[in-house]
Amino acid sequence: MMSADESHPASPRSFTAIVLAAGKGTRMRSDLPKVLHAIAGRSMLGHVLAAVQEAGATGISVVIEPERADVAAEVEALAPGARVHPQVERLGTAHAALQAREALETSCDVIIAFGDTPLVTAQTFRRLSSALGGGAAVAVLAFEAADPKGYGRVLTEGGQVVAIREEKDASEEERRVNLGNAGLMALSGAHALRLLTRIGNDNASGEYYLTDAVALAVAEGLRVAVVSIDEAEAQGVNDRVQLSVAEAAIQGRLRRAAQLGGATLLAPETVFFSADTVVGRDVLIEPHVVFGPGVVIGDRCTIRAFSHLRDARLMTNVDIGPHVRLRGGAVLEEGVHLGNFVEIKNAVLHAGAKASHLAYLGDAEVGAGANIGAGTITCNYDGVNKHRTTIGAGAFIGSNSALVAPVTIGAGALVGAGSVIVRDVPADALAVARGRQQMIEGFVATKRAAMRAAKAAKSKG
Amino acid sequence: MMSADESHPASPRSFTAIVLAAGKGTRMRSDLPKVLHAIAGRSMLGHVLAAVQEAGATGISVVIEPERADVAAEVEALAPGARVHPQVERLGTAHAALQAREALETSCDVIIAFGDTPLVTAQTFRRLSSALGGGAAVAVLAFEAADPKGYGRVLTEGGQVVAIREEKDASEEERRVNLGNAGLMALSGAHALRLLTRIGNDNASGEYYLTDAVALAVAEGLRVAVVSIDEAEAQGVNDRVQLSVAEAAIQGRLRRAAQLGGATLLAPETVFFSADTVVGRDVLIEPHVVFGPGVVIGDRCTIRAFSHLRDARLMTNVDIGPHVRLRGGAVLEEGVHLGNFVEIKNAVLHAGAKASHLAYLGDAEVGAGANIGAGTITCNYDGVNKHRTTIGAGAFIGSNSALVAPVTIGAGALVGAGSVIVRDVPADALAVARGRQQMIEGFVATKRAAMRAAKAAKSKG
Amino acid sequence: MMSADESHPASPRSFTAIVLAAGKGTRMRSDLPKVLHAIAGRSMLGHVLAAVQEAGATGISVVIEPERADVAAEVEALAPGARVHPQVERLGTAHAALQAREALETSCDVIIAFGDTPLVTAQTFRRLSSALGGGAAVAVLAFEAADPKGYGRVLTEGGQVVAIREEKDASEEERRVNLGNAGLMALSGAHALRLLTRIGNDNASGEYYLTDAVALAVAEGLRVAVVSIDEAEAQGVNDRVQLSVAEAAIQGRLRRAAQLGGATLLAPETVFFSADTVVGRDVLIEPHVVFGPGVVIGDRCTIRAFSHLRDARLMTNVDIGPHVRLRGGAVLEEGVHLGNFVEIKNAVLHAGAKASHLAYLGDAEVGAGANIGAGTITCNYDGVNKHRTTIGAGAFIGSNSALVAPVTIGAGALVGAGSVIVRDVPADALAVARGRQQMIEGFVATKRAAMRAAKAAKSKG
Repeated sequence: MMSADESHPASPRSFTAIVLAAGKGTRMRSDLPKVLHAIAGRSMLGHVLAAVQEAGATGISVVIEPERADVAAEVEALAPGARVHPQVERLGTAHAALQAREALETSCDVIIAFGDTPLVTAQTFRRLSSALGGGAAVAVLAFEAADPKGYGRVLTEGGQVVAIREEKDASEEERRVNLGNAGLMALSGAHALRLLTRIGNDNASGEYYLTDAVALAVAEGLRVAVVSIDEAEAQGVNDRVQLSVAEAAIQGRLRRAAQLGGATLLAPETVFFSADTVVGRDVLIEPHVVFGPGVVIGDRCTIRAFSHLRDARLMTNVDIGPHVRLRGGAVLEEGVHLGNFVEIKNAVLHAGAKASHLAYLGDAEVGAGANIGAGTITCNYDGVNKHRTTIGAGAFIGSNSALVAPVTIGAGALVGAGSVIVRDVPADALAVARGRQQMIEGFVATKRAAMRAAKAAKSKG
Repeated sequence: MMSADESHPASPRSFTAIVLAAGKGTRMRSDLPKVLHAIAGRSMLGHVLAAVQEAGATGISVVIEPERADVAAEVEALAPGARVHPQVERLGTAHAALQAREALETSCDVIIAFGDTPLVTAQTFRRLSSALGGGAAVAVLAFEAADPKGYGRVLTEGGQVVAIREEKDASEEERRVNLGNAGLMALSGAHALRLLTRIGNDNASGEYYLTDAVALAVAEGLRVAVVSIDEAEAQGVNDRVQLSVAEAAIQGRLRRAAQLGGATLLAPETVFFSADTVVGRDVLIEPHVVFGPGVVIGDRCTIRAFSHLRDARLMTNVDIGPHVRLRGGAVLEEGVHLGNFVEIKNAVLHAGAKASHLAYLGDAEVGAGANIGAGTITCNYDGVNKHRTTIGAGAFIGSNSALVAPVTIGAGALVGAGSVIVRDVPADALAVARGRQQMIEGFVATKRAAMRAAKAAKSKG
Repeated sequence: MMSADESHPASPRSFTAIVLAAGKGTRMRSDLPKVLHAIAGRSMLGHVLAAVQEAGATGISVVIEPERADVAAEVEALAPGARVHPQVERLGTAHAALQAREALETSCDVIIAFGDTPLVTAQTFRRLSSALGGGAAVAVLAFEAADPKGYGRVLTEGGQVVAIREEKDASEEERRVNLGNAGLMALSGAHALRLLTRIGNDNASGEYYLTDAVALAVAEGLRVAVVSIDEAEAQGVNDRVQLSVAEAAIQGRLRRAAQLGGATLLAPETVFFSADTVVGRDVLIEPHVVFGPGVVIGDRCTIRAFSHLRDARLMTNVDIGPHVRLRGGAVLEEGVHLGNFVEIKNAVLHAGAKASHLAYLGDAEVGAGANIGAGTITCNYDGVNKHRTTIGAGAFIGSNSALVAPVTIGAGALVGAGSVIVRDVPADALAVARGRQQMIEGFVATKRAAMRAAKAAKSKG
């Protein structure tokens, strides 16, 4: 189903992307605008913006719901320089696209994309753009539908596209066509504005359909190309079930890329990446691991089960988990080991440092080769401010210690188990801060006898 | 395959449910009776009882294995007022149903259901009941089987049901029929007892088959209706592989309902609900979360990965996890935050309270806005009894503190890190209970030198 | 597609296995040899060795890449007595098999297996061996391919195998054959060496193909049998996506076996076993559990979610999790209970001992019925050596205690919360080692007032 245009590969052309992102998303049942719902740690809109950027869009215009500062801010953050156009009335997709009239007034090709169709890849955008290169005025994106019900149909005659028909306007015969319209469309710069402004609203919904550009082009004797994709890539998101289907699709891509790059995922279906996760070679990821945004994993690292990472950088040969939680600026250098129930936040652990069990290291720097005992806690928060803890190279922090920041433990120093350290410890010093052990022999036996006596007295009484 | 009866929707009729729950369940390889094995935190029998109750059953009779107090107790707990009938001999499904003769002696319609067929919905029970409304004496539940092997077959002639044939009694030709019998049956009050008592045992197994009611009714010139369901809904549970298939089906329903209600499940296939879990709108549930019974999640809550909740109530805007464990009466009010490795049991945390890391709060009340430091533990158990800890609003508990209950920390009080609090702390007071920090400078260097000397002496000696 | 040979079941014959394990595995993108990549905690090579051993191989020869001490060590560890043959040149599978010439020079039947085809079962090896029993000189393993593209084709004429054709040497017509070659082959002792040495390399790759033994045998008038398996069992592993597919297949078998043996896996797809995991009857395994090698679970145990076990033995009625981590020699006797965020390493917990929250017990022995409070840590490591902690029967260790090993807590002794225990505690004694509680009333109020004053001064100034 590849179009003739695609059979002579054309060089990529420059294009402007118009992203329609003003949908209400009622079926999401959410206070958050639909296009800001996230997949793999990135908003749906963000996925679309990333794909058109990667495809080489020379300009981006985003049509949004008016007064949505959050959507505008997302555009500004992810595509600085993109223009944002409010859509006040909702009169259909062609009307929406015309809100970005500036983009249409240049002689540049345009691709019209949708903020709630997040699976379309950069390659597909490039193919759409290239399809105009063969002389077509319009290129549409289509797929063979397993069950076309609900989709607009791409109608052809003698192998040429003649129209796209929305389901509610389709005849019985047209409904039997299973070539579905993915919605996205490329229009050549020479024709885009004219075609869009000629679209009318004489149809079942009374809306200005973008898809009518096809029939208008054909009526003008212009050629319409078709670019085909898999049905899965064409899927839009209208409710949270579909959101999770899209999440699964993106996760599938990310997992496969990590695996083919040399990472072992024993159970890829239980590992969740963010779109920006970077994973090295000979990395082992056990089942049940979640990566939030901002994680970089170096070569030969092991991430054991039930670990949860975000904003963290692991150099090489780092071995963490199970049950590790990294967040907000964790940096683990070569050979660091973290064991179960350990949390690291905004802390650098230098090469070979270890924290094997039950610890919280926050706002800290831990020297090379230092050993952090089980139950160690950096008391970084005094209820008002956060303070830093610095632990020198080779220091040994005994179990169940509390390090009350700001505090510095010198290199090679030794902190006794169960200590509360409130003053700096010099290098190579021993510091102990705990109660002295006192014992009462026979205490329990006496107590037990007393209880027995009391009970006996009671049962007699 | 909808029956003619269903095409004229009848008003719901009242019916009595007879639930056959006496199966041995040998293939479960379990000491627990089969019908007590749980799906989504509720026994299979419980699912069936819930469905017939929701469908409006006016009476419930449960046929159980004799001397099974546990099954009887489950019936009493989930369907108070239901009758329990022991089945001493095992002579087939019709014989089992006749143990509930009382129910059959009323003029009320009956539906015969099975305790090990837990996926049948209330709607299906209503459809079965309504099917009698059109004048049928019997209504059977059937499904198009992908592969009918092993199922009883629903035999029709000229569109009318004429019999149900068990596979071992079926002819070659009958075995090619792929309309499978789901087992459940509705009988009109006018005919139920007579039909059941007329059933004989002249067949390959020598058993009294409930399904023979169909041929008897037809022979009497009565009409038999068919209600069709999906094959999946008809599935019974005979071993633990089938139990997990049923679990997956129920989980699929629960997840979908939560999603369509406005909760984001990034990876629904990794989230496990109980049948009674309540989830609000704009709730975010990360991958890998397990909900035991008794959980209510308010709007705009976030449940991060690897969290395990039961008997817990979260108000709005509560943010917990990853790695949080809630159990036995946890109540988290508006805006409470719990971080990693935190356990809450039988405790109320008032609005805005925080426990961000590594803590156990049991048998406690935590005031609004209080901050519980990392490593804080309520010592609620003295080896004999449990005691309560009360923490006032705005209190700040330093890290690694042990609060030995019964104890009260006043509002606004400050407990120093590493303290063991054994007496009440007044409001706004500072309490510290820890050893004084002592240091020996050069201790490690001296020790290291001594070790080196010892080693050198050894190698010389 | 079962061969005539199989239709008269033959008694098992003895055979030697030649395992080809010298592949480079470039697509794994790994420093580890491909055959050492693990599935269910056992190397792929280990799975093949286990299957041929279980099938009764009387000798095993493994052809490996030269200078791979790691692969040789794996063979030695898993199949002591097996011979290892380096393959210096890489001239094709027949050439590889001939490196094990010793095995071919005996009159024993041989089965040639592949170190990267880990799903072939012992039963299949037995079927291959038995297929020679009917008088065939060669038996090949084949499967009906859903899409045969990429596979060698098993070519038949009049129901008899005549050749196996590699895809690149196949004609258009041969490529339409969908009977795929699984690669494994059995050769009768009378013909094996002669057939293999006659194989030439006049083909598209210039390699000596093992599969050419088929055409040579046919040309000699010898009979070639076919043993059929499912396509899934035939799958080889060439990259890490395929590795995870094989992992899923093995996990499916392990889960099913555990379920049919009487264990409830609520969500089997989220539970990961090792090949050697032993699971008892009426065991409940919640979702999201990972079993490393060396785990034995007794009857009536419960393993809650997010638990991670390896090298651990649980007797009966043990209840652990959620969020438990067992490793390196954990032994939990009858009725032991472990709650959340508890780690056990190299420790025996005697009957009825409990550690319900946030604890690390390493290099320890815990007496029957002892109660280990939340936050208890055995300080087993002094930075140089590991030491043992012994806790007597019925002892009660208060929360947040640190037990500095080597140390012994006597039977029935009581350790106060927050204690650091550095000396042995006699039986029935009370030991407390913590600071005295000191309080400054009004401290927070004063501080607050001071801050307010400072702020006011600042805003004035």
